[in-house]
Amino acid sequence: MRNVTEDTLTQAVLETISKDADPRFQEIMTGLVSHLHAFALETNLSKEEWLDAIEFLYQTGKKTTRNRNEFILLSDTLGLSSMVDMISSRGNDDATDVSVLGPFYIEGAPFIKNGGDLIADNTGQHTLVKGRISSTDGSPVPNALLDVWQNAENGKYSNEDPEQDDNNLRARLNAAEDGSYSFTTIRPTPYTVPEDGPAGVMLEAMGRHPWRPAHIHFKISADGFQDLITEIYPDDDEYIDADAVFGVRDSLAVSFKPVASEEDAAQYGIKSPFLTVEYDFRLRPV
Amino acid sequence: MRNVTEDTLTQAVLETISKDADPRFQEIMTGLVSHLHAFALETNLSKEEWLDAIEFLYQTGKKTTRNRNEFILLSDTLGLSSMVDMISSRGNDDATDVSVLGPFYIEGAPFIKNGGDLIADNTGQHTLVKGRISSTDGSPVPNALLDVWQNAENGKYSNEDPEQDDNNLRARLNAAEDGSYSFTTIRPTPYTVPEDGPAGVMLEAMGRHPWRPAHIHFKISADGFQDLITEIYPDDDEYIDADAVFGVRDSLAVSFKPVASEEDAAQYGIKSPFLTVEYDFRLRPV
Repeated sequence: MRNVTEDTLTQAVLETISKDADPRFQEIMTGLVSHLHAFALETNLSKEEWLDAIEFLYQTGKKTTRNRNEFILLSDTLGLSSMVDMISSRGNDDATDVSVLGPFYIEGAPFIKNGGDLIADNTGQHTLVKGRISSTDGSPVPNALLDVWQNAENGKYSNEDPEQDDNNLRARLNAAEDGSYSFTTIRPTPYTVPEDGPAGVMLEAMGRHPWRPAHIHFKISADGFQDLITEIYPDDDEYIDADAVFGVRDSLAVSFKPVASEEDAAQYGIKSPFLTVEYDFRLRPV
Repeated sequence: MRNVTEDTLTQAVLETISKDADPRFQEIMTGLVSHLHAFALETNLSKEEWLDAIEFLYQTGKKTTRNRNEFILLSDTLGLSSMVDMISSRGNDDATDVSVLGPFYIEGAPFIKNGGDLIADNTGQHTLVKGRISSTDGSPVPNALLDVWQNAENGKYSNEDPEQDDNNLRARLNAAEDGSYSFTTIRPTPYTVPEDGPAGVMLEAMGRHPWRPAHIHFKISADGFQDLITEIYPDDDEYIDADAVFGVRDSLAVSFKPVASEEDAAQYGIKSPFLTVEYDFRLRPV
């Protein structure tokens, strides 16, 4: 190994991976080492640039907490998260497209009844979201659990805004026996991903904007089906074709239709005019 | 962008890089995004594996301090640091090979005179290190500054061992007008890279050992020359061909020759028998 050169180093590192190691781990580390080395070779990475990268990772580690993961933000803004989503969706054409989980999910949101309300005292345009949960073959999935979260009118999620209650605009509800679900909320707003850390520095240096189109997050689970993690986006959002984390899919961009009906509004306990979103989710059997 | 697929996502991310961004940064980010995506695609990286990787990076960040950088340790153990060293040494055939800086360097070590001593009250085999500092054309480099550091007989560096003085086995000295230098020290010992963090978990999972062959670190600087960061290794070390961080080069593996001469030992104020290492460094003009 002491005669190693830049042409033989990659192979020398790969040869240290034991044949007795977990086969999948061998595969992943082989890919990682190969691409890491090829990246350095192709870009002729200098020692100063390497030191800058080490400092960037140091700062990323310092910025990361359990509630604010800067590594996820880097993965999201570099498109890696979406790539992983797409890979895991292969052969999934009849199921709803997945999208990024994002850094703002919190487990254990309060339960509301099907048809219930997330608006509480939030300002913003009242919105009725409804649809059905079915299997990829179209048959209804009974009693699926929907975990829903979104940002407030000021663009912030409850866990990045001390002014909001911890569970503001977060809820879990069970769809009906026939798969139907509905809830009332406000129209979510476009917002910038957190820019006060290394990811913000990176976006700035790349000359990129930090905006995400507005969206509502869904995590849907039901016995006998794979969990579905996705987002739906108002299709008239200003950033619908320029998402900083590459999460939009054509099938997830939906119309938030204005409805002016005092009667319909009263039925849902919201103000007219309001917006209606109809979205049917299709889950993939296990 | 909302019609993006796994075949078009990489290009979509690359197109967000502004043509007005720093050209070198464009190059580096293009390489990084391309290899990151190709790695995920080739390994069919699953969402669970991605989450494991995010958790690994989270733990790496938590373990990292200014005195113990786990990101550097990952770079070292994956061979990236050595690859960067080799890239920066291209066209450098007449200069001394570089090797890794490692995580234990501390700026501002105390000065000793040329010919001075690092042994103090350390146990270990007394060793005389001497040689010349010259330019790549062979002419002497006068008064070069040598920054020298190594581990103690117990395998630990002063900054990972509370039993050692902060500056134990660390010194700076100026070579003479004719380029000659010498100092006395103990023979360094093989040791394991820190295993109590994510890098240790990774090595274990890869079925790799954590040992480095013994070495003395040098950082040598002189007006008109590029800084040289390197290590010299006893060529009879048990791990000379199995360095966990891939730092050994054939030209840096040297003989630690036993000398049994009371007279020579007395001249240097050390005990007989002792070891002698002769090593000439060649610096690259700026």
